[in-house]
Amino acid sequence: MGIVLGPNQYGKAEVRMVHVDRSTPVHVITDVNVTSQLIGDFSSTFATGDNSAIIATDTQKNTVYALARTGGFSTVEEFALRLARHFVGPYPQVTGARMEIEQYGWDRIHTPDGAHDHSFVRGSAEVRTALVMKDGDDEQVISGVAGLVVLKSTGSEFWGFPDVPYTSLVETTDRIMATSVTARWRYTGVDVDWDAAFTAIRAVMLEKFATVHSLSLQQTLFAMGEAVLTAHPEVAEIRLSMPNKHHFLVDLEKWGLDNPNMVFYAADRPYGLIEASVLRDDAPPAPTAWDGVAGFV
Amino acid sequence: MGIVLGPNQYGKAEVRMVHVDRSTPVHVITDVNVTSQLIGDFSSTFATGDNSAIIATDTQKNTVYALARTGGFSTVEEFALRLARHFVGPYPQVTGARMEIEQYGWDRIHTPDGAHDHSFVRGSAEVRTALVMKDGDDEQVISGVAGLVVLKSTGSEFWGFPDVPYTSLVETTDRIMATSVTARWRYTGVDVDWDAAFTAIRAVMLEKFATVHSLSLQQTLFAMGEAVLTAHPEVAEIRLSMPNKHHFLVDLEKWGLDNPNMVFYAADRPYGLIEASVLRDDAPPAPTAWDGVAGFV
Amino acid sequence: MGIVLGPNQYGKAEVRMVHVDRSTPVHVITDVNVTSQLIGDFSSTFATGDNSAIIATDTQKNTVYALARTGGFSTVEEFALRLARHFVGPYPQVTGARMEIEQYGWDRIHTPDGAHDHSFVRGSAEVRTALVMKDGDDEQVISGVAGLVVLKSTGSEFWGFPDVPYTSLVETTDRIMATSVTARWRYTGVDVDWDAAFTAIRAVMLEKFATVHSLSLQQTLFAMGEAVLTAHPEVAEIRLSMPNKHHFLVDLEKWGLDNPNMVFYAADRPYGLIEASVLRDDAPPAPTAWDGVAGFV
Amino acid sequence: MGIVLGPNQYGKAEVRMVHVDRSTPVHVITDVNVTSQLIGDFSSTFATGDNSAIIATDTQKNTVYALARTGGFSTVEEFALRLARHFVGPYPQVTGARMEIEQYGWDRIHTPDGAHDHSFVRGSAEVRTALVMKDGDDEQVISGVAGLVVLKSTGSEFWGFPDVPYTSLVETTDRIMATSVTARWRYTGVDVDWDAAFTAIRAVMLEKFATVHSLSLQQTLFAMGEAVLTAHPEVAEIRLSMPNKHHFLVDLEKWGLDNPNMVFYAADRPYGLIEASVLRDDAPPAPTAWDGVAGFV
Repeated sequence: MGIVLGPNQYGKAEVRMVHVDRSTPVHVITDVNVTSQLIGDFSSTFATGDNSAIIATDTQKNTVYALARTGGFSTVEEFALRLARHFVGPYPQVTGARMEIEQYGWDRIHTPDGAHDHSFVRGSAEVRTALVMKDGDDEQVISGVAGLVVLKSTGSEFWGFPDVPYTSLVETTDRIMATSVTARWRYTGVDVDWDAAFTAIRAVMLEKFATVHSLSLQQTLFAMGEAVLTAHPEVAEIRLSMPNKHHFLVDLEKWGLDNPNMVFYAADRPYGLIEASVLRDDAPPAPTAWDGVAGFV
Repeated sequence: MGIVLGPNQYGKAEVRMVHVDRSTPVHVITDVNVTSQLIGDFSSTFATGDNSAIIATDTQKNTVYALARTGGFSTVEEFALRLARHFVGPYPQVTGARMEIEQYGWDRIHTPDGAHDHSFVRGSAEVRTALVMKDGDDEQVISGVAGLVVLKSTGSEFWGFPDVPYTSLVETTDRIMATSVTARWRYTGVDVDWDAAFTAIRAVMLEKFATVHSLSLQQTLFAMGEAVLTAHPEVAEIRLSMPNKHHFLVDLEKWGLDNPNMVFYAADRPYGLIEASVLRDDAPPAPTAWDGVAGFV
Repeated sequence: MGIVLGPNQYGKAEVRMVHVDRSTPVHVITDVNVTSQLIGDFSSTFATGDNSAIIATDTQKNTVYALARTGGFSTVEEFALRLARHFVGPYPQVTGARMEIEQYGWDRIHTPDGAHDHSFVRGSAEVRTALVMKDGDDEQVISGVAGLVVLKSTGSEFWGFPDVPYTSLVETTDRIMATSVTARWRYTGVDVDWDAAFTAIRAVMLEKFATVHSLSLQQTLFAMGEAVLTAHPEVAEIRLSMPNKHHFLVDLEKWGLDNPNMVFYAADRPYGLIEASVLRDDAPPAPTAWDGVAGFV
Repeated sequence: MGIVLGPNQYGKAEVRMVHVDRSTPVHVITDVNVTSQLIGDFSSTFATGDNSAIIATDTQKNTVYALARTGGFSTVEEFALRLARHFVGPYPQVTGARMEIEQYGWDRIHTPDGAHDHSFVRGSAEVRTALVMKDGDDEQVISGVAGLVVLKSTGSEFWGFPDVPYTSLVETTDRIMATSVTARWRYTGVDVDWDAAFTAIRAVMLEKFATVHSLSLQQTLFAMGEAVLTAHPEVAEIRLSMPNKHHFLVDLEKWGLDNPNMVFYAADRPYGLIEASVLRDDAPPAPTAWDGVAGFV
C-alpha cells in the first residue's frame, strides 16, 4: 500500500488575446481567453522537482500568441484543436491536452456613415466557449455558451408539485421565468462549420425558450436540448445548467393595491438550479471529454 | 470645541425591480436597481437612537414598488424624480433626497415568426444610470452610462510625451485604444425627453470615439464631451472617466516572427485612467448635485 | 435511435443561513451557504411538465432552515449528511442527493475586557467546504478548503525545463511562490471528528507549503497531499488545484537600480495552473463522489 | 459662451506591487495596490493631442516601483506622500497629485517550529487604505479601512420609527446587526505614527461596535466616529459608510417550530445604507481633500 500521484494536468490559464485581422481596411477582431493544459507523464516534477519533462506554462502562453500569428484565428474550436495538436504528438511525455477558450463578442460602432471599419463596442455579456479534449489521436470538441440571460414575462406556470413536509410554495399559472443559460454540446467529429453551427444552435435554444409554454423550467430545458439534437445531427449530446432566477411578485395588498403580475422583486440568492444532459441514445459515450467540466456544464 | 455630526444620508440601496407593462400583449419590461437616500435632520437617532424621525429604509423599499404600481415606470429619470418628490415636502425632517437608478438592457428574442411578444434576452453589459439630487425645491438630474466598452483597432497614436525620470514607454503611431466609458451629464432642467436625449447622447459619444483620429485618450475624451454639449443645449456639463485598457503588442521576434499590429495581450492591471469634466462656461454650477459621485463619475 | 434525457439533478442553490447558538450568553455563530440537489427519476417534468414527482426547490430551502432549527448546526459535514438523509429514503423518486455547503469564518471581537460574547469580525476570505454525495445507502463525504491564499518570499526555484519551441522563460533559483489553494479530500467513512480533521488537515497543508524547499509548484502540491494522507488514514484521496500566482521581479536596470528580489509586480492573468490528485493505491475508488466537481476541485 | 475643459486628472490605476524586506532572514512583505493621479495644466492634450506636458502613465507606474526600491516601503501613508512629492514641485505643469493605496494583510504561517520566516497566509479580506491629496504645498492625508465586516448576534434593537405610508416593518428589540464598515479619517497633519494610529483607530471602532447596545445603526456609527475623534486628537474628521446587511429571522411557525433568534436568512440585496461624517467643530475644513471620494467614503 502506498500514496501515489493520481490524474493531473497543468498549464497556463486565462491567456488574454485580441487578434486583429487587418487583411482589409475593414478590420475583424477576435477577443479570447485561452486556457492551455497538458496531460501526460509529469510524475518526476511532483516527486522530486525534476522539471525535465515540463514544458513551461510560460511556453504554453507564448505558443498561443505565436500560433495566432502563424495561422491566424478563425474560430475558437479550430484554434483549440490547432493548439492541442501542437503539443500532443511531438513530445513523448505529453499524451493529451485540454484546451479551453472563451470568446467575447464585439459589434461594430454605427456612425451616420454606416458600420465603422475599425471601431467596436462590446456586445452582450454572454460568452462563447470551446473545449477540446485530445487524448492521443482521439479529439473531442465541446462548444458552448455561458451567461445567455433570458426572461419571459408570461407563458410560464408551476403547479402540481407534492405537498411534502416544509412545502409552502403557492401554485402559479403565470410567473416570470428567467435564467442564465450555460450550455455545452459535444460534436461527433471535428469536420464541422463551427461558426454556422454555433449560430444556429444558439438561435434554436433561444427560439425554444421563447415559444415553449412552460410548466416547469425542466420542461423548457429539455425542449431546448431536444431541439438542438433534432436540428443538428453533428451534435451527440448537450448539457444545460439553468438557474431559476426568481422574480417574486411584490405583495402590495396591505396598501390597497393589486399587483396583476406587473411589479416584481428580482432576487439574487437562493435560486433554483436545474441541470441535465440530453443525449442521442445511439451516440458513443465520451465520458473523459467532460473531465474538468463542473457538474453539468 | 466639540465633536459633531456632519453631513449624512441614509436609505435603502439596490432595490431590484422588474416592471412589466402588460397593457398590450406585447409586453415591455424595465429592469432596474434603485437606491433611495434621504437627507435632512436625523440627528436624534445618531445621538440617542431615537428613531422618531427615521422613515425606515424598509419603507423606502416598499415605496419604490408601490410607486411603480401606482404610476408605472416610464424612464429612470422620471421615476427618480417621482420618488424624490414623494419624500421631500411631506415630511418636515426630510429636506432632500438622492435617488440613483441603474437600468439593464433587454432585447426581444427573435424567432422565425419575428420579435417575440414576451420573451427577452439580456443585451450588452452596459448600464444606463440616473441620479436625482433634490434639495428642497431644487432638482438636479444627472444621467449617464457605465460600462460602455469600446475599442479601436487602429486610428490611435501616442507620442511626444516628455522623457522625465523613469520613462521607458516607446512612442507609437498605431495602437489599439480601448476603454470602458463611464459618463454622467447634468441637465439644466427637468423638462427633457429623457429617452430621446439618452439615446442621442450615447450615439454621439460612440460616433466621436469611432471617428476621431486620436493622439491621446484625453483628446478623444474631450471630443466626446464637447460633441455632447454642442448637440445638446439641455446639458450643462458632462463628466467622463475612461480607463486606458492596455492592449500590448506581443513581441514574437525571438522566434523570427513579425507582429504588424495583429496579436495583442489584453492586460487587466494596471491601467491608465483619464478623468475630466467638460462644461459650458456660462452654466450655473451645481456642485452639490455631484455629492456622492465618486471622483468624476 | 432517439433523443433521451441523461443524468440530471435539481435543487436550490446558495441558501444563505446564519445559525446562532444561544445556549449560553457566549453565542456561537455559523455562517453557511447551502446548495441542495436531488437526484432520481424526474423524467416526467422534463417530458411534459408533470411536476408530481418534484419536491419544490422552495421546499428544499425551507428544509435547510427547519433542520437547522430542529437539529442545530454542528459541522458542515454533519449537516450535509443530515440534509441528504432527509430526502433520500422517504421519497421513492429520490434515489440520491448532492449537498454542498460553504462556511465563512468569523472571529470574536477583542475588547479591553477580552473576547466579546456576541460580537464578531469576519476572518480570512478562505472558505471551508463540504460535499456529501448520497446514492441510496452509499454516502461519500468530501471536505475541503477554497481560497487559502499563501505566499513564500523565498525558498522556491524553477529550472531544468526543456527548451522547446516558444520557450523564453529564464531559469531562477529564487522566486516568490504564491498560490490560492483549493483542496478537497474524500473520507473513507462518515464516522469522523469533522472539525478536528479539518483543522489538522489545513494545518498540515500550510506547514508543508511553508517548509518544503520548492523546485516546482507540482513538488509542493504533491508534498502537501502526501502529508495529508500520511497523517490522516481516514482520508482516501485529496485533489488540489493550485494556480501559480505570478510575481514578476521588476526590471529597474535601465535606471541604474538593482532589484535583489525586493520589488515585484503581482500579475492577475495569465497564471499557471497545476491540478492533481493524490491517492492511496489501495483505496476503493468512488468516481461518482466527484460528479459535479469541476476538474480537480 | 463656450465649451471648456473642467477639473481633470490622469494617471495609472491599480499598480500591484509586493515589496519584500529581506534585511534579515525574517522577511517582511507589503502587498499594495497603488493608484497615482496627477493634477495640473494638461489642457493641450485634451485640445489637440499635444502630449508635451503629459508624464506618461507608464512612467507613473515605473516610479512606484523605483521609489519602493530606492526608499523602501514603510507605510501606505508615507509611501503615498513620497510619491506625491516626487511629482508635485519638479514639473511646472503638475500642480497637485492624488495618490491612493490599498494594502492587503498577510499573517505568518505557524508551523510546529513557530512563525515561519518567509511563508505567509492571506489574512482577512479587509483592506487598509490611504489617500494623499497634495495641492501645491498643502498635503492632506486620509487613512481608512474598507470591508471590515462585523456582526452582533444580539444587543441591537430597532423601534420607534414613524408609521408613514408604505411602512410595514415590525419593531424589534433583538436582531442581528451586521455591516461592512468602510471608514476614512483625515489627519490634521503629516507628522503621525501611521501604523500605530491605524491599529488603534481600527481597534476603537471594533470595540464600540461590540459594546454599544444599539438602538439604530446610526447610533452605532456615530459612537464609533466619536470614539475615534475622542481618542485621536490628530484626526480632524471621519466618514463612515455602513450598509445594514440584513439578517431576517426565518418564519418556521407554519410547521409548528418556534425560532427564538436562532435561524436567519442572510440577504444580499437590498440593504440599508447609512453614511455620515463625524467632525471636530473647530477643525479647519478641507473639502478638496475628499475630491474623488465616492459619497461618504
